[in-house]
Amino acid sequence: MPGGGGGSASALVGARAAEVASAIDAAFDRLLASPDDPRRRLYDAMRHAAIGGGKRLRPLLVQAASDLFNISRESALRVGLAVECIHVYSLIHDDLPAMDDDDVRRGKPTVHKAFDEASAILAGDCLHDLAFEVLADEETHPDPFVRIELVRALALASGPAGMAGGQMMDLAAEKARFDLATVTRLQNLKTGALIAFCVDAAAIMARLPQEARTSLHGYARDIGLAFQIADDLLDVEGDAALAGKALGKDAAAGKETFVSLLGVERAREQAHLLVAQAKAHLHSHGCEADLLRAIADYIVERDR
Amino acid sequence: MPGGGGGSASALVGARAAEVASAIDAAFDRLLASPDDPRRRLYDAMRHAAIGGGKRLRPLLVQAASDLFNISRESALRVGLAVECIHVYSLIHDDLPAMDDDDVRRGKPTVHKAFDEASAILAGDCLHDLAFEVLADEETHPDPFVRIELVRALALASGPAGMAGGQMMDLAAEKARFDLATVTRLQNLKTGALIAFCVDAAAIMARLPQEARTSLHGYARDIGLAFQIADDLLDVEGDAALAGKALGKDAAAGKETFVSLLGVERAREQAHLLVAQAKAHLHSHGCEADLLRAIADYIVERDR
Repeated sequence: MPGGGGGSASALVGARAAEVASAIDAAFDRLLASPDDPRRRLYDAMRHAAIGGGKRLRPLLVQAASDLFNISRESALRVGLAVECIHVYSLIHDDLPAMDDDDVRRGKPTVHKAFDEASAILAGDCLHDLAFEVLADEETHPDPFVRIELVRALALASGPAGMAGGQMMDLAAEKARFDLATVTRLQNLKTGALIAFCVDAAAIMARLPQEARTSLHGYARDIGLAFQIADDLLDVEGDAALAGKALGKDAAAGKETFVSLLGVERAREQAHLLVAQAKAHLHSHGCEADLLRAIADYIVERDR
Repeated sequence: MPGGGGGSASALVGARAAEVASAIDAAFDRLLASPDDPRRRLYDAMRHAAIGGGKRLRPLLVQAASDLFNISRESALRVGLAVECIHVYSLIHDDLPAMDDDDVRRGKPTVHKAFDEASAILAGDCLHDLAFEVLADEETHPDPFVRIELVRALALASGPAGMAGGQMMDLAAEKARFDLATVTRLQNLKTGALIAFCVDAAAIMARLPQEARTSLHGYARDIGLAFQIADDLLDVEGDAALAGKALGKDAAAGKETFVSLLGVERAREQAHLLVAQAKAHLHSHGCEADLLRAIADYIVERDR
């Protein structure tokens, strides 16, 4: 869907995204300073995966949602760093030979290719811990109640009732024949839960009551699915060089996706419908929600 | 070292250990109720590893340290459950073919043998999340500041500056020739950090100031090393059937251990010295520290 009239969304997202990406790289560089002992290889493996790559969409989403509530950019950045720790750990483990068996990620060899499988497993495990260490630190937010709520929400989003549960369903999808409802549930867990956390985190930091979070939840659920449909479309139509990873793998593995179930045209329509729906959830907000709106557009316009 | 006059320590430890083990099993059974969807296999893999096995030494240590400060058994149990989530996750990942490649654990097939490698990786990842989810829940402790301190301490103990860092050093030990100082550092990270957390957790729940924690830290450091030396001795002299896992693997892999570096006799002496030292750290405590003392004795007397 490149070049599809999304110039203004791309420009708004692009400027802030570049700023966030460079701040996340700098934060990882500090967090992952290599020690001068036999653990160096472990840190090198973490640095290989964590630094210099990726769209940093999740940290950007935390910033965008934090704009609604005047949350400090520093707090939003720390939460974004924690989410990115989880995202990168999950990519390292998902790429392992026993899982999706991928050799290339973000245009570089995957961690088990550049290092070895044991280092990849441990590097993932360590980034998993670092996510919670970052959230628990008072630098992230002065209020311990906010920090513990962030920890609880992130553990739920990444565990068996979230991302990891979705990945397990995804492995089962090679053998089972999932219908649209099951694929939707799979994707709500596998990618949706962590995306929803990014938006929830801002609501938690703003100490917004539960009942005031409904529209933000709706926004997150809709862009999460739109993101996955766009991913499925890129898997069919995209450019592997731009994507920096192998494409066409779902079809080869015989997995049902939004595209295999709906067809390219209806899948694309559905993605655009979800984006419109996501933006409708923001109707009560003014220009402070412009970045959230632009991200929704960007999600279906991106070419990687 | 069985039958070595440790009857009373064994009896004291045994009664409370049985109580703790059954409470931990019951807690895992509730925490890991299998859902009726494609994630069932993931939950089954977690249940296979987490329920019905192990000495539950770490949850017992949390209870014993909590005895010093009149902390509720329910809080101590929840913290013990979180530590055991981390311990079990680390066993699942350490047993993988790319890591220590073990087929038997706690007398049962390892998770990747009973299920498959992908399920084992994900089951470990999920237990890792559940540890933090358990700590973050207010059932664990009413004070959010205490909960966030527990999260921070556990993330540090299990991550690259703790257990996972030690496991990385352990993998390097097959190729390098480590001296006694390096093996000590390796073990302080690999097993010591999580054992120290168990004792620290009680101090955190008691909101003990840092300067009052020195003697408890000393106790934890000493029993951590004594535990590892006893493990090395069992690896050389133990009974694989009793241990429920393969033995003699360190020597086969050419890894230096306390036993290879010190010899059996000096290693055994060192373990007993460390236990005496550990108990000396408790001198200011009365009978409320009896379980901690008995655990120190038990650690070098156990036969598995």
